[in-house]
Amino acid sequence: MKELLVGNKPLINYVLAGVGMLKDDDELVIKARGKAISKAVATAEMLRKQFFPGELEVTDVKIDSETRPAPELGREVLVASIEIYMRKKGN
Amino acid sequence: MKELLVGNKPLINYVLAGVGMLKDDDELVIKARGKAISKAVATAEMLRKQFFPGELEVTDVKIDSETRPAPELGREVLVASIEIYMRKKGN
Repeated sequence: MKELLVGNKPLINYVLAGVGMLKDDDELVIKARGKAISKAVATAEMLRKQFFPGELEVTDVKIDSETRPAPELGREVLVASIEIYMRKKGN
Repeated sequence: MKELLVGNKPLINYVLAGVGMLKDDDELVIKARGKAISKAVATAEMLRKQFFPGELEVTDVKIDSETRPAPELGREVLVASIEIYMRKKGN
Protein backbone atom coordinates (compact mmCIF):
# COMPACT_ATOMS: atom_id res chain seq x y z
CA MET A 1 0.00 0.00 0.00
CA LYS A 2 1.33 3.42 -0.92
CA GLU A 3 2.12 5.83 1.92
CA LEU A 4 1.58 9.58 1.81
CA LEU A 5 3.59 11.30 4.56
CA VAL A 6 2.12 14.71 5.32
CA GLY A 7 4.47 17.37 6.66
CA ASN A 8 5.03 21.13 6.40
CA LYS A 9 4.33 21.76 2.73
CA PRO A 10 1.08 23.37 1.54
CA LEU A 11 -2.04 21.15 1.67
CA ILE A 12 -2.48 21.09 -2.11
CA ASN A 13 0.94 19.40 -2.49
CA TYR A 14 -0.29 16.40 -0.54
CA VAL A 15 -3.72 16.32 -2.19
CA LEU A 16 -2.13 16.23 -5.65
CA ALA A 17 0.39 13.61 -4.52
CA GLY A 18 -2.56 11.54 -3.28
CA VAL A 19 -4.34 11.91 -6.61
CA GLY A 20 -1.20 10.67 -8.36
CA MET A 21 -0.86 7.68 -6.03
CA LEU A 22 -4.50 6.70 -6.50
CA LYS A 23 -4.20 6.79 -10.31
CA ASP A 24 -2.52 3.40 -10.39
CA ASP A 25 -3.42 2.09 -6.94
CA ASP A 26 -6.72 1.34 -5.15
CA GLU A 27 -5.43 1.92 -1.64
CA LEU A 28 -3.51 4.59 0.21
CA VAL A 29 -2.47 5.32 3.79
CA ILE A 30 -1.96 8.94 4.83
CA LYS A 31 0.39 9.44 7.79
CA ALA A 32 1.32 12.47 9.85
CA ARG A 33 2.69 13.55 13.23
CA GLY A 34 2.14 16.49 15.52
CA LYS A 35 0.72 19.66 13.98
CA ALA A 36 0.56 18.06 10.50
CA ILE A 37 -2.23 15.75 11.70
CA SER A 38 -4.87 18.37 10.87
CA LYS A 39 -3.50 18.64 7.33
CA ALA A 40 -3.53 14.85 6.93
CA VAL A 41 -7.26 14.75 7.80
CA ALA A 42 -7.92 17.67 5.42
CA THR A 43 -6.00 15.84 2.68
CA ALA A 44 -8.05 12.68 3.16
CA GLU A 45 -11.32 14.58 3.09
CA MET A 46 -10.41 16.61 0.01
CA LEU A 47 -9.44 13.41 -1.82
CA ARG A 48 -12.62 11.71 -0.68
CA LYS A 49 -15.10 14.52 -1.37
CA GLN A 50 -13.57 16.64 -4.11
CA PHE A 51 -11.23 14.51 -6.19
CA PHE A 52 -12.82 11.02 -5.88
CA PRO A 53 -16.46 11.83 -4.92
CA GLY A 54 -18.39 8.62 -4.23
CA GLU A 55 -15.40 6.47 -5.18
CA LEU A 56 -13.09 6.62 -2.18
CA GLU A 57 -13.75 5.60 1.43
CA VAL A 58 -11.90 5.74 4.73
CA THR A 59 -11.47 2.16 5.93
CA ASP A 60 -9.66 2.86 9.20
CA VAL A 61 -8.15 5.67 11.24
CA LYS A 62 -5.49 4.92 13.86
CA ILE A 63 -4.00 7.32 16.35
CA ASP A 64 -0.93 6.74 18.48
CA SER A 65 1.97 8.65 20.02
CA GLU A 66 5.59 8.29 20.99
CA THR A 67 7.76 9.91 23.63
CA ARG A 68 10.62 11.91 22.20
CA PRO A 69 13.49 13.81 23.83
CA ALA A 70 13.14 17.60 23.63
CA PRO A 71 16.56 18.88 24.74
CA GLU A 72 15.47 22.48 24.19
CA LEU A 73 12.76 21.91 26.83
CA GLY A 74 14.96 19.78 29.06
CA ARG A 75 12.40 16.95 29.08
CA GLU A 76 10.59 14.46 26.90
CA VAL A 77 7.47 15.28 24.88
CA LEU A 78 4.64 13.09 23.62
CA VAL A 79 4.31 13.38 19.83
CA ALA A 80 0.93 12.24 18.49
CA SER A 81 0.48 10.53 15.13
CA ILE A 82 -2.31 9.46 12.79
CA GLU A 83 -2.73 6.87 10.04
CA ILE A 84 -5.71 7.22 7.69
CA TYR A 85 -6.39 4.16 5.52
CA MET A 86 -8.32 4.79 2.31
CA ARG A 87 -9.58 2.50 -0.43
CA LYS A 88 -11.50 2.85 -3.66
CA LYS A 89 -15.01 1.45 -3.18
CA GLY A 90 -15.69 -2.00 -4.59
CA ASN A 91 -12.05 -3.09 -4.15
CA MET B 1 -21.48 10.14 26.55
CA LYS B 2 -19.62 13.30 27.53
CA GLU B 3 -18.18 15.45 24.74
CA LEU B 4 -14.91 17.34 24.90
CA LEU B 5 -14.78 20.03 22.21
CA VAL B 6 -11.18 21.00 21.49
CA GLY B 7 -10.54 24.52 20.21
CA ASN B 8 -7.94 27.28 20.54
CA LYS B 9 -7.04 27.06 24.22
CA PRO B 10 -3.78 25.48 25.40
CA LEU B 11 -3.57 21.66 25.22
CA ILE B 12 -3.39 21.23 28.98
CA ASN B 13 -6.84 22.86 29.37
CA TYR B 14 -8.42 20.05 27.36
CA VAL B 15 -6.37 17.30 28.98
CA LEU B 16 -7.45 18.44 32.46
CA ALA B 17 -11.06 18.81 31.28
CA GLY B 18 -10.86 15.23 30.00
CA VAL B 19 -9.49 14.01 33.33
CA GLY B 20 -12.42 15.69 35.06
CA MET B 21 -14.96 14.13 32.69
CA LEU B 22 -13.48 10.66 33.13
CA LYS B 23 -13.62 10.88 36.93
CA ASP B 24 -17.33 10.10 36.97
CA ASP B 25 -17.76 8.63 33.51
CA ASP B 26 -16.32 5.61 31.69
CA GLU B 27 -16.62 7.05 28.19
CA LEU B 28 -15.69 10.24 26.39
CA VAL B 29 -15.72 11.57 22.84
CA ILE B 30 -13.19 14.21 21.85
CA LYS B 31 -14.24 16.41 18.92
CA ALA B 32 -12.42 19.06 16.91
CA ARG B 33 -12.39 20.87 13.56
CA GLY B 34 -9.73 22.30 11.32
CA LYS B 35 -6.37 23.09 12.90
CA ALA B 36 -7.54 21.94 16.35
CA ILE B 37 -7.62 18.34 15.10
CA SER B 38 -3.94 17.87 15.95
CA LYS B 39 -4.59 19.06 19.50
CA ALA B 40 -7.56 16.68 19.83
CA VAL B 41 -5.33 13.71 18.94
CA ALA B 42 -2.65 14.94 21.36
CA THR B 43 -5.30 15.28 24.09
CA ALA B 44 -6.51 11.72 23.55
CA GLU B 45 -3.00 10.32 23.61
CA MET B 46 -1.99 12.24 26.74
CA LEU B 47 -5.13 11.00 28.51
CA ARG B 48 -4.47 7.48 27.32
CA LYS B 49 -0.75 7.24 28.05
CA GLN B 50 -0.05 9.73 30.83
CA PHE B 51 -3.21 10.22 32.89
CA PHE B 52 -4.93 6.80 32.52
CA PRO B 53 -2.05 4.46 31.55
CA GLY B 54 -3.38 0.97 30.79
CA GLU B 55 -6.91 1.98 31.73
CA LEU B 56 -8.20 3.93 28.75
CA GLU B 57 -8.56 2.84 25.12
CA VAL B 58 -9.56 4.43 21.83
CA THR B 59 -12.62 2.55 20.58
CA ASP B 60 -13.16 4.47 17.35
CA VAL B 61 -11.87 7.44 15.34
CA LYS B 62 -14.11 9.10 12.73
CA ILE B 63 -13.11 11.80 10.30
CA ASP B 64 -15.44 13.89 8.18
CA SER B 65 -15.74 17.38 6.70
CA GLU B 66 -18.27 20.01 5.75
CA THR B 67 -18.30 22.76 3.17
CA ARG B 68 -18.53 26.23 4.67
CA PRO B 69 -18.81 29.65 3.08
CA ALA B 70 -15.63 31.74 3.33
CA PRO B 71 -16.73 35.24 2.26
CA GLU B 72 -13.24 36.60 2.86
CA LEU B 73 -11.99 34.17 0.19
CA GLY B 74 -15.00 34.60 -2.06
CA ARG B 75 -15.63 30.84 -2.13
CA GLU B 76 -16.48 27.84 0.01
CA VAL B 77 -13.91 25.89 2.00
CA LEU B 78 -13.87 22.28 3.20
CA VAL B 79 -13.47 22.13 6.99
CA ALA B 80 -12.28 18.75 8.27
CA SER B 81 -13.36 17.29 11.61
CA ILE B 82 -12.50 14.39 13.91
CA GLU B 83 -14.30 12.42 16.61
CA ILE B 84 -12.21 10.26 18.94
CA TYR B 85 -14.22 7.80 21.05
CA MET B 86 -12.55 6.62 24.25
CA ARG B 87 -13.59 4.17 26.96
CA LYS B 88 -12.16 2.80 30.17
CA LYS B 89 -11.09 -0.80 29.65
CA GLY B 90 -13.39 -3.49 31.00
CA ASN B 91 -16.48 -1.29 30.57
